[in-house]
Amino acid sequence: LKTEIISIGTELLLGDIIDSNSKYLAEKLNALGYDINYITTVGDNKNRLIEIFEKALKRSELIISTGGLGPTDDDLTREVISEVNCRPLKIDYFLEEKIRDFFYKKNYIMPKNNIKQAYLPDGAKAIPNHWGTAAGILLETANNIIISMPGVPREMKKIFDIEVIPYLKEKNNMIIKSRVLKLFGIGESRLEELIKDILDRQINPTIALLAGNGEVKIRITAKGDNIYEKEEKIKIVEDKIRKIVNEYIYGVDQDSLPLVTGSLLKEKGLSIAIAESCTGGLIGKRITDIPGSSVYFRGGLITYSNESKINILGVNDHTLKDYGAVSNEVACEMADGARKLLNSNIGLSVTGIAGPGGANKNKAIGLVYIGFSDGNIITSYRLNFRGDRSLNRWMSSQYVFYYLLKYLRDVEAGK
Amino acid sequence: LKTEIISIGTELLLGDIIDSNSKYLAEKLNALGYDINYITTVGDNKNRLIEIFEKALKRSELIISTGGLGPTDDDLTREVISEVNCRPLKIDYFLEEKIRDFFYKKNYIMPKNNIKQAYLPDGAKAIPNHWGTAAGILLETANNIIISMPGVPREMKKIFDIEVIPYLKEKNNMIIKSRVLKLFGIGESRLEELIKDILDRQINPTIALLAGNGEVKIRITAKGDNIYEKEEKIKIVEDKIRKIVNEYIYGVDQDSLPLVTGSLLKEKGLSIAIAESCTGGLIGKRITDIPGSSVYFRGGLITYSNESKINILGVNDHTLKDYGAVSNEVACEMADGARKLLNSNIGLSVTGIAGPGGANKNKAIGLVYIGFSDGNIITSYRLNFRGDRSLNRWMSSQYVFYYLLKYLRDVEAGK
Repeated sequence: LKTEIISIGTELLLGDIIDSNSKYLAEKLNALGYDINYITTVGDNKNRLIEIFEKALKRSELIISTGGLGPTDDDLTREVISEVNCRPLKIDYFLEEKIRDFFYKKNYIMPKNNIKQAYLPDGAKAIPNHWGTAAGILLETANNIIISMPGVPREMKKIFDIEVIPYLKEKNNMIIKSRVLKLFGIGESRLEELIKDILDRQINPTIALLAGNGEVKIRITAKGDNIYEKEEKIKIVEDKIRKIVNEYIYGVDQDSLPLVTGSLLKEKGLSIAIAESCTGGLIGKRITDIPGSSVYFRGGLITYSNESKINILGVNDHTLKDYGAVSNEVACEMADGARKLLNSNIGLSVTGIAGPGGANKNKAIGLVYIGFSDGNIITSYRLNFRGDRSLNRWMSSQYVFYYLLKYLRDVEAGK
Repeated sequence: LKTEIISIGTELLLGDIIDSNSKYLAEKLNALGYDINYITTVGDNKNRLIEIFEKALKRSELIISTGGLGPTDDDLTREVISEVNCRPLKIDYFLEEKIRDFFYKKNYIMPKNNIKQAYLPDGAKAIPNHWGTAAGILLETANNIIISMPGVPREMKKIFDIEVIPYLKEKNNMIIKSRVLKLFGIGESRLEELIKDILDRQINPTIALLAGNGEVKIRITAKGDNIYEKEEKIKIVEDKIRKIVNEYIYGVDQDSLPLVTGSLLKEKGLSIAIAESCTGGLIGKRITDIPGSSVYFRGGLITYSNESKINILGVNDHTLKDYGAVSNEVACEMADGARKLLNSNIGLSVTGIAGPGGANKNKAIGLVYIGFSDGNIITSYRLNFRGDRSLNRWMSSQYVFYYLLKYLRDVEAGK
């Protein structure tokens, strides 16, 4: 189906927020086999919205819009869909009930203007939104399918994943299948060099390299008549790639470094504790992003000051004086201190200079030490990042999970 | 000038990369007083590019495009601009020289296809690119100005800032000025009700409400002949709004809750420490996102287990048994424990059920207690969120900063 995305909201035209919805939808729609030809961003302006929707009805079969389904006067999407399709708005009593219920459960009285959200173009169906009051709209006409979702990314993503994807899968007969290999510790150019022969020869499945957040992804996408054929095709290519760069592949599809390390810890019955200096809580945050992490995560210490490194973690004040807080020695003592204090199998630590302040003539911004201890092995890694504060902190957290993964894999391999 | 942005590149339609260029341009163009009506993303497809440019020539005065100026066959922007304006491509020998020089300085021979980048539509000017071989294109016609820049964000941003902004400033006499008020603790609908009279009567300055991340923003935008007039206009409206909802306004423009509370702590010479259970490091991460936070942030304890709450924070095991880890009592002991252990003026804590697991018949997902202690006042707040794990954790962190802000403001007011 010829597909286009319409992204609605003046705040997007003002550059206040980035249009992450369109990227999310484009990625998922492509994976489902839908070809997107246009993404249009337009403000909360009725005439321009009508112009864009009328154009879309002519040139595309599937139209997916986000935004403009809120309760305020600025929210015009339902009116516009109604108008361009000549389908008058009608109240959906079931939807009204759900909206009232939403407020009732929060002990609020429904503001008057929310009633607007219970109206749908004649013949349209509501797409349930369990996370807010703006239900989506699904309208099938002779020539088009229009799917309209709220613009709040959190709500949009859930509605799309849970309600829209199954619908689109059914609509599309030629389903493609794809698999993503996730790599850490290798750059995109180097990866391209290593698997150039495979990349050059591939037509079906196709292979794409994607880089971001210090990771590289390899996406393998197969077309075919049935699922077995497609999976078989993907497997052959995946095996070829794994022969060359398996050591860098930490997971597939929805895996993340915290998720993969967490599963391995759980599997092996091991626990971890962390001591963070320059990352200031980011690693703990990423570990506990994962539901159920309490099984293996004993806790963390954010020891931002020397005082707290000494008093809480038991870092030796001589070590701090002799080597400085950003050093191999302190990283090791922090990791082992966290392990002992929180009574875990493994302790990990980060100490570094995230920037923009804190550098001196011997230690530059981006210098980071990662400490590791399992009681027997106490070691540390020195890294040099060249990003800003935010990137340096992010990369530090990535490497903490990476070293943990290496250790857990070595344990597995009996090394 | 009526303005639109055209973002060119198939990778954008595939969702491989996010369109950060358009956000960047939109933000800067708005600040310069240009009203953007459309942002269109289109792939490297000649027919569709022609369609989009032809439409843009009719409906907009200023057209800004990014992407499609590279040397490969996929790069079609210069051909399309040439075609839709009936301006044949001509070689610019000066540009050719610069491209050859670019390669020469890198000790490379210029690949043959790069010569393409020396061609411009008749009458157009090259916009210098000192960071790559793709110069921008500036074409002024009777009805339109077309500015075309390369798609690589790093190059595009530099070209825009250094070359295009001075040009646009000169073109536009009427510059707008805007100010954003940031609010926490009030919903968008409720805010709209409260300031409805002001909202309804405003034409210049205009007022827009934007909601997201549990916060609401009010943007006041003024047009006028000089900066003093505009600032005065904004001030009058801001004062009116503050009379009604001042208690919810925590900052302006680029302020964030961690930034505002951090500044107040610094100003008053106070320090904080935190104890996090369900947020698992998120609060520490947000505090230390801010460079220089070490001045007031003593550190944090991520006490995810009961054991660590007792052993490290000194929470009484009877309190844990009698009230459970998610309780007012434990929140208070955690906050005071963190304060004592890290030797700070203020201790804050969070304990709650972020979900999806952890709920029981008395305590639902989203139940969160926030503890506070300054040694004299030891208190806690009970909250009920209805989001998923990620939102519940985020909102918990928001409220921690919010209660801290309230306390710091009360100190200021001498309460």
